[in-house]
Amino acid sequence: MSKNILVTGTSVRADLLQPLIDAGYSIDNPTHLLTETELKEALKSSVAYLLGGDEYATKLALSSARDLKVVAFLGMGYESFVDAQAARELGILVTNTPGTLSNAVAELTIGLVLCSTRKLYLYASNWAGGRSGGEDKQRDLAALHVGIVGLGGVGIRIAEILRGGFGCKVSYYSRSRKRPLEDKLGIEYLDLAGLASQVEVMIIMTPSNAETKGLIGESQISAFRPGTILVNTARPDIVDPLALLKGIETNRIEYAAFDDFYEEPKDAVAKLKALVPSKLMVTPHIGSLTHQARDGMARKAIASILNILSTGTDPNVVNGQ
Amino acid sequence: MSKNILVTGTSVRADLLQPLIDAGYSIDNPTHLLTETELKEALKSSVAYLLGGDEYATKLALSSARDLKVVAFLGMGYESFVDAQAARELGILVTNTPGTLSNAVAELTIGLVLCSTRKLYLYASNWAGGRSGGEDKQRDLAALHVGIVGLGGVGIRIAEILRGGFGCKVSYYSRSRKRPLEDKLGIEYLDLAGLASQVEVMIIMTPSNAETKGLIGESQISAFRPGTILVNTARPDIVDPLALLKGIETNRIEYAAFDDFYEEPKDAVAKLKALVPSKLMVTPHIGSLTHQARDGMARKAIASILNILSTGTDPNVVNGQ
Repeated sequence: MSKNILVTGTSVRADLLQPLIDAGYSIDNPTHLLTETELKEALKSSVAYLLGGDEYATKLALSSARDLKVVAFLGMGYESFVDAQAARELGILVTNTPGTLSNAVAELTIGLVLCSTRKLYLYASNWAGGRSGGEDKQRDLAALHVGIVGLGGVGIRIAEILRGGFGCKVSYYSRSRKRPLEDKLGIEYLDLAGLASQVEVMIIMTPSNAETKGLIGESQISAFRPGTILVNTARPDIVDPLALLKGIETNRIEYAAFDDFYEEPKDAVAKLKALVPSKLMVTPHIGSLTHQARDGMARKAIASILNILSTGTDPNVVNGQ
Repeated sequence: MSKNILVTGTSVRADLLQPLIDAGYSIDNPTHLLTETELKEALKSSVAYLLGGDEYATKLALSSARDLKVVAFLGMGYESFVDAQAARELGILVTNTPGTLSNAVAELTIGLVLCSTRKLYLYASNWAGGRSGGEDKQRDLAALHVGIVGLGGVGIRIAEILRGGFGCKVSYYSRSRKRPLEDKLGIEYLDLAGLASQVEVMIIMTPSNAETKGLIGESQISAFRPGTILVNTARPDIVDPLALLKGIETNRIEYAAFDDFYEEPKDAVAKLKALVPSKLMVTPHIGSLTHQARDGMARKAIASILNILSTGTDPNVVNGQ
């Protein structure tokens, strides 16, 4: 039996790998982006694979890995990085790292909310360009009604910061109502139509899948109160790009902030980019890019590897029976 | 006795003036910037003066105001807008509006902290310019030790948001130690040298006067931990500009965010401006520029006017015996 563990990518600090070495495993950490052939070759002699790079582990790459027990994905959205169904058929468990990025993404979200309520990027850009003066009166977040779409780990942390820190009124929508959290956090449930038509700040924090793509579209945005702020730190495509453009042009949306953005449709994207920084700001998918989040992910992935190698199972398996 | 009240500037909403009208007074609200002569003329026939414009009420302008009982300044820093000593000698009370802007300035401060921990302005600018990729790992605010210089109304509100929302460790320095607030807020006192050398985020929120000018200078900044974040939402001159420049150049300061900036010295200011947005961002003195803060100021100033006209006194008099 091999004692080799493949670690890809550059984001796992060497000292965090020590528990694997202490357990008698050796580490192979190529840092370049592996081709399918290179990945297949490296996995042939590995018992575990900490997937921290940008490669995609295909069925073919996994197919010769006779000793491989686990693909531990560093993050949440493993679907874009490993063929989990093929892994399952080959008897290989896939894990991810829930909970480790909630605080980092929540803090980015609050930052983008304040950038929107106070137009920080716009006014800082104007200052840098010598165009200050005549700024609009802005709004205290404490006085606004905030809505959160999606009440998973990140949504909960956003609600904690808004309620415990800023003291604003918070409502949420999620597919399944979460009554115990409502009292604990001091928030109320609204259906999506109610949330869209009542809140002054709309935060999108729901997983991206076939069901949520375009969840916030023309019918929601046309019901927004004039001057609503829209912050999307989930995947861009949960908000329909044409509806976003129309919402800004008709002033239903006063300011929008996204962490990552659409590539398509080109024409709408070009029109939206022209609204930066006066009506829109975009950060380049940095939600979980903090030392604390990344180290937390690595620790959790490594714990899953050790669990599976010693007991055959782990709470974070995503492709089990 | 005159029943006229002079209101200057454009920021007081007409409906907020209704209590004065209900009490039998008439309002004169010129909206242009008054000359000293115009102001003197207008004050001759006024019993109260709500100072919301950019004029300076000199001794001369006040000297013919036989019926004037109160100059109610809209904001905190009345010294730059009215000769309060001359007013006192003429038997005219001057008031200001403490407490009304604390939340607005605190929220701006937290916004600038998050812009600094997550480099939001830098990365949003890079995205807009097509220069995204290779972003640095950032830091969770929850994991940082934050220091606040100055624990007045704004400093207290900043501490509440940081402790109640983000849960980070907070220390403070102020001229007089405030033990009852330490337990209430969950913060600890450090002397200025201790604060400068221990914290990872330094927030400046202390009044500007001869005593605090340059309070944060070379000796404090050279003691900063490498990579400290500096956020100044008080007056710029509390931080020495040359020490700021050196602190950034030597990486004692990883990122600095100011609300308003220096005019002098020209050479240092030019060098600092060249560090925008990679190491520095500046907003154009928008700390209290929210509807909630401005309306709160107007309500407080109007209450002071009614108090003084009916009882001869008010808690917010700043030039009393």
